[in-house]
Amino acid sequence: MNDRAYALFEEQQTARGINLVEVKASLKALRIETPSWGYGDSGTRFKVFQKAGVPRNPFEKFQDAAEVHRLTGLAPSVAIHIPWDKTEDYGKLRSHAESLGLSIGAVNPNLFQEDEYMLGSVTNADASIRRMAINHLLECVDIAKETRSRDLSLWFADGTNYPGQGHIRNRKRWMQEALEEVYKALNADMRLLIEYKCFEPAFYHTDLADWGMAYNLAQKLGPQAEVLVDTGHHLPGANIEHIVAYLLDERRLGGFHFNSRKYADDDLIAGSINPYELFLIFYQILSARQDGGAEVAESVEHIAYMIDQSHNIEQKIPAMLRSVLNVQTQYAKALLIHLDEVNAAAARNDVLGAEHAVRSAFECDVTPLLHAVREEQGLPLDPMKSYLAGSYGDSILARGKGGASW
Amino acid sequence: MNDRAYALFEEQQTARGINLVEVKASLKALRIETPSWGYGDSGTRFKVFQKAGVPRNPFEKFQDAAEVHRLTGLAPSVAIHIPWDKTEDYGKLRSHAESLGLSIGAVNPNLFQEDEYMLGSVTNADASIRRMAINHLLECVDIAKETRSRDLSLWFADGTNYPGQGHIRNRKRWMQEALEEVYKALNADMRLLIEYKCFEPAFYHTDLADWGMAYNLAQKLGPQAEVLVDTGHHLPGANIEHIVAYLLDERRLGGFHFNSRKYADDDLIAGSINPYELFLIFYQILSARQDGGAEVAESVEHIAYMIDQSHNIEQKIPAMLRSVLNVQTQYAKALLIHLDEVNAAAARNDVLGAEHAVRSAFECDVTPLLHAVREEQGLPLDPMKSYLAGSYGDSILARGKGGASW
Amino acid sequence: MNDRAYALFEEQQTARGINLVEVKASLKALRIETPSWGYGDSGTRFKVFQKAGVPRNPFEKFQDAAEVHRLTGLAPSVAIHIPWDKTEDYGKLRSHAESLGLSIGAVNPNLFQEDEYMLGSVTNADASIRRMAINHLLECVDIAKETRSRDLSLWFADGTNYPGQGHIRNRKRWMQEALEEVYKALNADMRLLIEYKCFEPAFYHTDLADWGMAYNLAQKLGPQAEVLVDTGHHLPGANIEHIVAYLLDERRLGGFHFNSRKYADDDLIAGSINPYELFLIFYQILSARQDGGAEVAESVEHIAYMIDQSHNIEQKIPAMLRSVLNVQTQYAKALLIHLDEVNAAAARNDVLGAEHAVRSAFECDVTPLLHAVREEQGLPLDPMKSYLAGSYGDSILARGKGGASW
Amino acid sequence: MNDRAYALFEEQQTARGINLVEVKASLKALRIETPSWGYGDSGTRFKVFQKAGVPRNPFEKFQDAAEVHRLTGLAPSVAIHIPWDKTEDYGKLRSHAESLGLSIGAVNPNLFQEDEYMLGSVTNADASIRRMAINHLLECVDIAKETRSRDLSLWFADGTNYPGQGHIRNRKRWMQEALEEVYKALNADMRLLIEYKCFEPAFYHTDLADWGMAYNLAQKLGPQAEVLVDTGHHLPGANIEHIVAYLLDERRLGGFHFNSRKYADDDLIAGSINPYELFLIFYQILSARQDGGAEVAESVEHIAYMIDQSHNIEQKIPAMLRSVLNVQTQYAKALLIHLDEVNAAAARNDVLGAEHAVRSAFECDVTPLLHAVREEQGLPLDPMKSYLAGSYGDSILARGKGGASW
Repeated sequence: MNDRAYALFEEQQTARGINLVEVKASLKALRIETPSWGYGDSGTRFKVFQKAGVPRNPFEKFQDAAEVHRLTGLAPSVAIHIPWDKTEDYGKLRSHAESLGLSIGAVNPNLFQEDEYMLGSVTNADASIRRMAINHLLECVDIAKETRSRDLSLWFADGTNYPGQGHIRNRKRWMQEALEEVYKALNADMRLLIEYKCFEPAFYHTDLADWGMAYNLAQKLGPQAEVLVDTGHHLPGANIEHIVAYLLDERRLGGFHFNSRKYADDDLIAGSINPYELFLIFYQILSARQDGGAEVAESVEHIAYMIDQSHNIEQKIPAMLRSVLNVQTQYAKALLIHLDEVNAAAARNDVLGAEHAVRSAFECDVTPLLHAVREEQGLPLDPMKSYLAGSYGDSILARGKGGASW
Repeated sequence: MNDRAYALFEEQQTARGINLVEVKASLKALRIETPSWGYGDSGTRFKVFQKAGVPRNPFEKFQDAAEVHRLTGLAPSVAIHIPWDKTEDYGKLRSHAESLGLSIGAVNPNLFQEDEYMLGSVTNADASIRRMAINHLLECVDIAKETRSRDLSLWFADGTNYPGQGHIRNRKRWMQEALEEVYKALNADMRLLIEYKCFEPAFYHTDLADWGMAYNLAQKLGPQAEVLVDTGHHLPGANIEHIVAYLLDERRLGGFHFNSRKYADDDLIAGSINPYELFLIFYQILSARQDGGAEVAESVEHIAYMIDQSHNIEQKIPAMLRSVLNVQTQYAKALLIHLDEVNAAAARNDVLGAEHAVRSAFECDVTPLLHAVREEQGLPLDPMKSYLAGSYGDSILARGKGGASW
Repeated sequence: MNDRAYALFEEQQTARGINLVEVKASLKALRIETPSWGYGDSGTRFKVFQKAGVPRNPFEKFQDAAEVHRLTGLAPSVAIHIPWDKTEDYGKLRSHAESLGLSIGAVNPNLFQEDEYMLGSVTNADASIRRMAINHLLECVDIAKETRSRDLSLWFADGTNYPGQGHIRNRKRWMQEALEEVYKALNADMRLLIEYKCFEPAFYHTDLADWGMAYNLAQKLGPQAEVLVDTGHHLPGANIEHIVAYLLDERRLGGFHFNSRKYADDDLIAGSINPYELFLIFYQILSARQDGGAEVAESVEHIAYMIDQSHNIEQKIPAMLRSVLNVQTQYAKALLIHLDEVNAAAARNDVLGAEHAVRSAFECDVTPLLHAVREEQGLPLDPMKSYLAGSYGDSILARGKGGASW
Repeated sequence: MNDRAYALFEEQQTARGINLVEVKASLKALRIETPSWGYGDSGTRFKVFQKAGVPRNPFEKFQDAAEVHRLTGLAPSVAIHIPWDKTEDYGKLRSHAESLGLSIGAVNPNLFQEDEYMLGSVTNADASIRRMAINHLLECVDIAKETRSRDLSLWFADGTNYPGQGHIRNRKRWMQEALEEVYKALNADMRLLIEYKCFEPAFYHTDLADWGMAYNLAQKLGPQAEVLVDTGHHLPGANIEHIVAYLLDERRLGGFHFNSRKYADDDLIAGSINPYELFLIFYQILSARQDGGAEVAESVEHIAYMIDQSHNIEQKIPAMLRSVLNVQTQYAKALLIHLDEVNAAAARNDVLGAEHAVRSAFECDVTPLLHAVREEQGLPLDPMKSYLAGSYGDSILARGKGGASW
């Protein structure tokens, strides 16, 4: 059935004018970074539910990540979080990763879990706390050098809960000063990815509240600073794909933290609540790659696709499998958009024609395509089924409950 | 200065047609319940910051609550949370409360912190977990009888994170079955207060998502079931005072959980983000008391005003003082609305006149009024200043860090 | 290619356990009512753009609607709006409709375009305006009897812009009194469909603001009153499919006004902004039909599926075609959900399994299925292509610009 | 009573450390521009309600504006909209304004009411429409030179309703090209104020969707381009005062369009829905003026405070009076914030102290202060009462119904 399905798919897509050779090549090149913390226990402010089998240390997290990569071929790197993944010898962690066919991805400093950071880290009114925070950032730059990570990925919980609580413009200046110091410490091939978030854990103002603040800061810092878009960090209704297109055009889109949301920063599995939105994000990326010019196309190549979710109630590894598979699915669908057709319709102000050209790609079933790609890559056709039928899930139960969490 | 200020205030309000004798009587009758958990450590999913001096057990929580009541005269009862306030002998806890001039207020069951409740409590697909949850509710009814609490205050974290995860209509039925059993266990003078919330900790659907679901359920249960409005539990833009007016007209408004929000369920100090909204809530209540008929007026008398907040970054007792004082302030302002004038303007379709009649009361400075009332009640004129100047705050530091939290 | 595609589709769906005979029967039974006003000019408050070819009167609107039905087989009835479709002789309009193979659907009173209604119609503080509004409603009941329409579809623009402007509880009472009078005028086989909306054109409060208010009112009126869900009339984040499931369980879901929104009441083409949401609505309906019991299943049969959109910038007839086709597509996908599988996964608390069982149906490409159904019904396989290739669109240009609008 | 009230107020504020001489000077310097279109009929997409007495031409609009200024001393300039205020001879309009004690304020081009602009003006895919739009902008620059207006105030309705409809990055480029051409046409003392809006009339994407896009564009254009903040143009929850502080720090805040909103772009009277927000905006402005440095202070002096509202249901002139008075009231309250106290509390991380220092100023009743200022300026103490008691409102009824509208 699979062969016939692919043959038919090929026929249909060829009739639509789609070049499947290029589509497959793009799919094989897709890389999605999974986060070490996505394998551990997580929760809401009301409760962290502990699960049996959760890894007890960074080394076990990499083992689980290797299982995700083994089954999907999609996830060859793992982001780490300091101090959650603190270890004596990062060279050893890197060797461990490499022995599993993985590399260490973005290094994520943690500036929100020390008592000192209650009222801010790099924007704290207390200069000694700002110093402590900057030192931690610099330590993370050093770790990134050891782990050979390209990206330092910065999310700040900094903000205030009440009007007057903080001096907003002073805090803005302190943020810039801190990042200028960190920027200088980077190697020439490293990047600073600056994340923004509208609220939580601060509930009145967040120092980097939206893409505009992150972008403006990146511009001031220099070409190695770029914006990181977390799909859950926007106000209701925000058009994320517009922001993506905008940042691409300015060549400041460094990467993504993928996850799903219906309300706030819900951190659900990517592609599970509004799959069309994820598809439309990829549409903008592929559109920019096609006609944005050489520099933008180059910039598209360096986008870091990363998962950042909280699997509070799900089994961790299956949840991560579902996440990377959902991203792959929407990417595959976006690759079936006949961009020239969309653009031609838009150029002649044919509203319904242009809309149809985009949506009709989304309505394609890409299962035959993904099966074919996986077959060519020697991967299981259905990674989730393969995992559930395999023994890895049982084997880790020996770890017991009470593994890593945050 | 205070005397002159009050004399002028009296003159001004009399000129506006306001009867200050009644206003003062209403102010003296105001009772705001504080929550035992508001004195303990709390936080976001990212971090709970521990504070020195936080009470280590229910008895110390009541001591702190007594300090709030001593200074304000506003907070004579304290809501408890089971099992956070679990104790061997609730009679002893009640005696302790009474010895401090307090009573025990609403009993709040906790159905979200046992591992079993990860996927729901009374709506769990597993009947044995539903049984366990109902038993806990029944236990809380028993406790309420011991503590002589009128209200059982029910908030359910029940909901789902993904489409398909739960059978929505079955869960609806299970919710109703559970509450029917609990309802039957109530004494005739007890009430079931049913809270609703649009999201968090569930991020796809919440079983009691809005006032309509809580109200419909209360109607099915009987006259002792009423709706509890938490001001932070609505979607962006929701007109809370409209809901309040609606529920009052149906005589199903049981009480409030006051707190402030700008984004989601931010749980900030009541009256700190949008004080006008709190004022408008009281406007609807006072309007219903005036012309809603005898039964509605009776129902207004039984509204439970309760604080429900998370003081993540604030000192606990001052945060609670600020909260009850803010509620008092907005209530005082609402008492200065000349309702007949508003209604007359509305009746003649005078848009600007009616709006002005409401807003102009909000613009009054009620400080002289509150000073006068406190003086007549033998309370400190400025409870916050009095607290900061006093020794209680220092005295509790001996408790150290690591007190009660959730 | 189509035959092979359908053969493969059949094989795949049979393997998934789906009974395509039933699926096809359901698809053939789908009826979507289009609104007469959807064929006319519309716009935003900033501008109504006039299009050539727009119908100049109700009779021409029915001609356009007949073209939509001729191509899709989906849209055999047309909702009318009074006075926009006012005519001397409704019997004549009905004959005209019937001669085109159409019937007259819901009658929609208009209570927002007379000067008198500026501050409310049935909730106006002025009793004579309330009388005028009720009389218009009664006139519409009479028209519905003449047009043999089952449903009176009620949307009220009533609300206020400012606190104090209206007496909220009095307005609530006036609303109820008005509808009680209208309810009594209905024939036994007629229904009152009550729509709700959170805001616009009123910006402080809307008298029927949410499903809870519409539902409570319907309950008070009697069994012939039901709730109408307009998919664009909710606050950001509202879980519409939850509301649908809830109303179905209470047997008070009368029908839908379908359209898409990203921000407010955007009135875009159904299924164009978040197609998964439309699919999930149908999932809840089909789930209720399957296991909600006989009465709920009966109630599902009577749901009125109606389009209500503003095609401000699109060609009118293609926009309507796209709308009904999108609804059909999502309904077809929902019919591929293996409900027993979803429910079994939910019953064993298998979060990822249940989620997958729902989403995987959405990922199917239903083109072969829809082609097969259309072929069996003697319809064009691609109604849009057929329309664009046909001459109807050109033929109506003779109408010129300046047709019907609102 | 007024004298005693002011004496007491002075005593109280002096005790708080406030310098009333400076406060009064600031109040007397406040200038709020009213919009010519705010005096005409307006409405929602559902209905424009015509009012008797509405001005029939620009000259009558200025007469009404003069009445607002005569009573308040606050509104000496009037923004005009082209072509709504198109006239043969702008010199004559200017003389008319000056004869009434007014000047002509910002010139607002209109790029949304010609049929050609249905799918965009400066971002239309059709180059000839882009040219037409740019020419209109250049015409408005010429008009501004004739009217001696400093500011060209640009709001674009440009955007799309559907994914794919427009090429987002091309449109971004066209927007920039257009404004570069307009920028070059400005005199050295003129400014380009760039407004942003998240949605409406476009419902999928707006080309200038948020402050970040407007700001980035302003930066590219040069120092005469600044951002215009319309308080109704943000997504739910947006912290507007944070954006204000941010733009001030970058010296790119050109001005405001004041109005109130609860849901979307509701365009209600400024200060009527959430007065605290308006106060907090002024707090950030005054804070920046105090300690932002000389250049920021200079930039604060040039902020254009403008009203932009739709008085759909209100009498026009009283609605405008209420608007400017509400702005004045919140500005007065903000002037009572003891900034040093706030900043000192923030600097020592005293959360509750800092919050209180801000909120306590809001709770002051500024009536005595405003009365004193008005008295010193020879203005009526209560401008609204004075208007209602006067004859102007009756005198304009002779204009009849059917005046200017949009």
